[in-house]
Amino acid sequence: MSEFRAKKSVALSGVVAGNTSLCSVGRSGNDLHYRGYDIKDLAEECEFEEVAYLLIHGKLPTFAELQSYKNKLGSMRGIPDEVKVVLEALPKDANPMDVLRTAISALGCIQQEPLAHRPEDAQEIADRLLASSASMLMYWYHFSLFGTRISVETDEESIGGHFLHLLHGERPPASWVKAMHVALILYAEHEFNASTFTCRVIAGTGSDFYSAITGGIGALRGPKHGGANEVALEIQERYANSEVAAVDIYDRITRKEVIIGFGHPVYTVSDPRNDIIKGVALNLSVESESVQLFDIADRIAEVMWDAKKMFPNLDWFSAVALNVMKIPTTFFTPIFVMARLSGWSAHIIEQRIDNKIIRPSANYEGPENLTFVSILDREATS
Amino acid sequence: MSEFRAKKSVALSGVVAGNTSLCSVGRSGNDLHYRGYDIKDLAEECEFEEVAYLLIHGKLPTFAELQSYKNKLGSMRGIPDEVKVVLEALPKDANPMDVLRTAISALGCIQQEPLAHRPEDAQEIADRLLASSASMLMYWYHFSLFGTRISVETDEESIGGHFLHLLHGERPPASWVKAMHVALILYAEHEFNASTFTCRVIAGTGSDFYSAITGGIGALRGPKHGGANEVALEIQERYANSEVAAVDIYDRITRKEVIIGFGHPVYTVSDPRNDIIKGVALNLSVESESVQLFDIADRIAEVMWDAKKMFPNLDWFSAVALNVMKIPTTFFTPIFVMARLSGWSAHIIEQRIDNKIIRPSANYEGPENLTFVSILDREATS
Repeated sequence: MSEFRAKKSVALSGVVAGNTSLCSVGRSGNDLHYRGYDIKDLAEECEFEEVAYLLIHGKLPTFAELQSYKNKLGSMRGIPDEVKVVLEALPKDANPMDVLRTAISALGCIQQEPLAHRPEDAQEIADRLLASSASMLMYWYHFSLFGTRISVETDEESIGGHFLHLLHGERPPASWVKAMHVALILYAEHEFNASTFTCRVIAGTGSDFYSAITGGIGALRGPKHGGANEVALEIQERYANSEVAAVDIYDRITRKEVIIGFGHPVYTVSDPRNDIIKGVALNLSVESESVQLFDIADRIAEVMWDAKKMFPNLDWFSAVALNVMKIPTTFFTPIFVMARLSGWSAHIIEQRIDNKIIRPSANYEGPENLTFVSILDREATS
Repeated sequence: MSEFRAKKSVALSGVVAGNTSLCSVGRSGNDLHYRGYDIKDLAEECEFEEVAYLLIHGKLPTFAELQSYKNKLGSMRGIPDEVKVVLEALPKDANPMDVLRTAISALGCIQQEPLAHRPEDAQEIADRLLASSASMLMYWYHFSLFGTRISVETDEESIGGHFLHLLHGERPPASWVKAMHVALILYAEHEFNASTFTCRVIAGTGSDFYSAITGGIGALRGPKHGGANEVALEIQERYANSEVAAVDIYDRITRKEVIIGFGHPVYTVSDPRNDIIKGVALNLSVESESVQLFDIADRIAEVMWDAKKMFPNLDWFSAVALNVMKIPTTFFTPIFVMARLSGWSAHIIEQRIDNKIIRPSANYEGPENLTFVSILDREATS
């Protein structure tokens, strides 16, 4: 076990729960590698589908392999009629994460994973979920809000482009598609975070692929995990300008309030993903001639460093970037799902090969050996 | 941390992942207590609803409290129309665990948990799920197989009775209702088992109650966990009589085959629940004048002890008991859900009070610092 500083707010912090060949994180304080490749190279040079292929299928694809993979994903965007019926039954005020959890759970009833649990079947399901999760979400969105049964097919080349096209009903600008590639790559994988660990605990019992994924979605939904990017935007949008923001944040720090979007359980120096997503957020903001939110976010980051020596994590400027692309805030965490599906899938396959059930112990701190009293002799106490 | 013998097939074995006041298990090698009460007293003296109240609401109820609780549960058996639509969309060959996972996930879209996450709201949802999970499962069962939209209301006093009544369409014998009480009590809670741990990991991110429960169902579905009682019956039903069974099991042991239903990651001496469920299985078998399956199961248990010094766990004779009550094998694990909902719920509430995210580390064993090669320069390798 490497050295670690256990945090009060984190259980099992620094405790090794298994082996992985997928990701190393935080070993120098601010590094992240997927299967040995530096996240900076991947984010700068790759499309998201290349990285998904790396994680799920084990290596970076050649040009021909990538074309073939993108064609395959493009052919898997449809959703079964039964899942559409399920999506139509869900109300418009539902949490989109709950919608995605339910739709994928229903898909698991309709397109069951074969019992043998072969890696190639799992990869096929992973690809199908990557290709169709935006379709499911956007089908529900348009139906529940406007009563429209949209076609979930587009000719977009990428998962991010497909999502933006279905959301806005038109071809997205190239710069937005590129921004989605970067955001999805940065969100794709992060070792034994809580949602990935959930997937592995479920996979460890021998359960099916969809059960593991629905568990992962449930865990990612929490505001201490994937939900943080939504909370980040809420904070940024509170302020009219960056100076008002600075004053208020100093004030909140004095009152010991936790500011979501800063610090990280694994990184000690900085989040290596921050510089990359910050650049994306700035470019998109300048291009759209709307830099105010970026300025507010940037000023708050200065304050957090000045007062607390805390650095922004991936969620902080992701919120700015996604907001510029007119993505409703409640879809920020579902976008995280679309990305992390690749990492989750690779971890499920790896956990199955590892073939262990994950079963820790608890420290019992309740009453000992109480005398049982029959119901008629029990006294009313509260 | 107490002494433990880590097992190769179990990750985090003996590693403390948190505190609990709900359950202590295996400290003497074969003990189990719920909130300090011996499982033997609870199983002999209580109705399941008493134990659910103990776990979810914190103490054993008085007679008046139990009556009131049972009345409340009885009033919560209905399911919303939207959930019925979802259930009707799921095919008859779906896995009932997937159906339950999907229905509860859909319910979480329709009856969302309030954002504040107050224990009293969580208790209310827990009670509703306890009361209605049999309704959801049986509604789907009758609709998918026979096209019938059944009423999910019965005048049965207990959750077990309600399930049997909906399944068979008639009032169940008193001995069966009693047997369900015992089975549900024995399955209700078991410390940081994989499904409960899943619920806690999900709850630890600040996610909602339904997300945690759907994750728990997904984990319980695995054959190394809740699915074991279904596999146990498959084994028992392979044989025409107990002597054929004995010969074959000795043979399989020689071939190092793992026989599901024996041994346990936590108990070292015996499973304290086995004697109790074995008695129930025998009584039901004698009453129904059909002891052959019991005899086969009992003979296999003798062989396992003789050849491997392995003891039957709860799943082994549960399979016999549930089979006597003409419960389809694929519902064995869903019955486990109906019981364990009580333990899961109590653990979710406890994890929220603990207020920690559960985030372990991994041992990285993949390639280090690979040189990134641009896509056009990559060579085709497999």
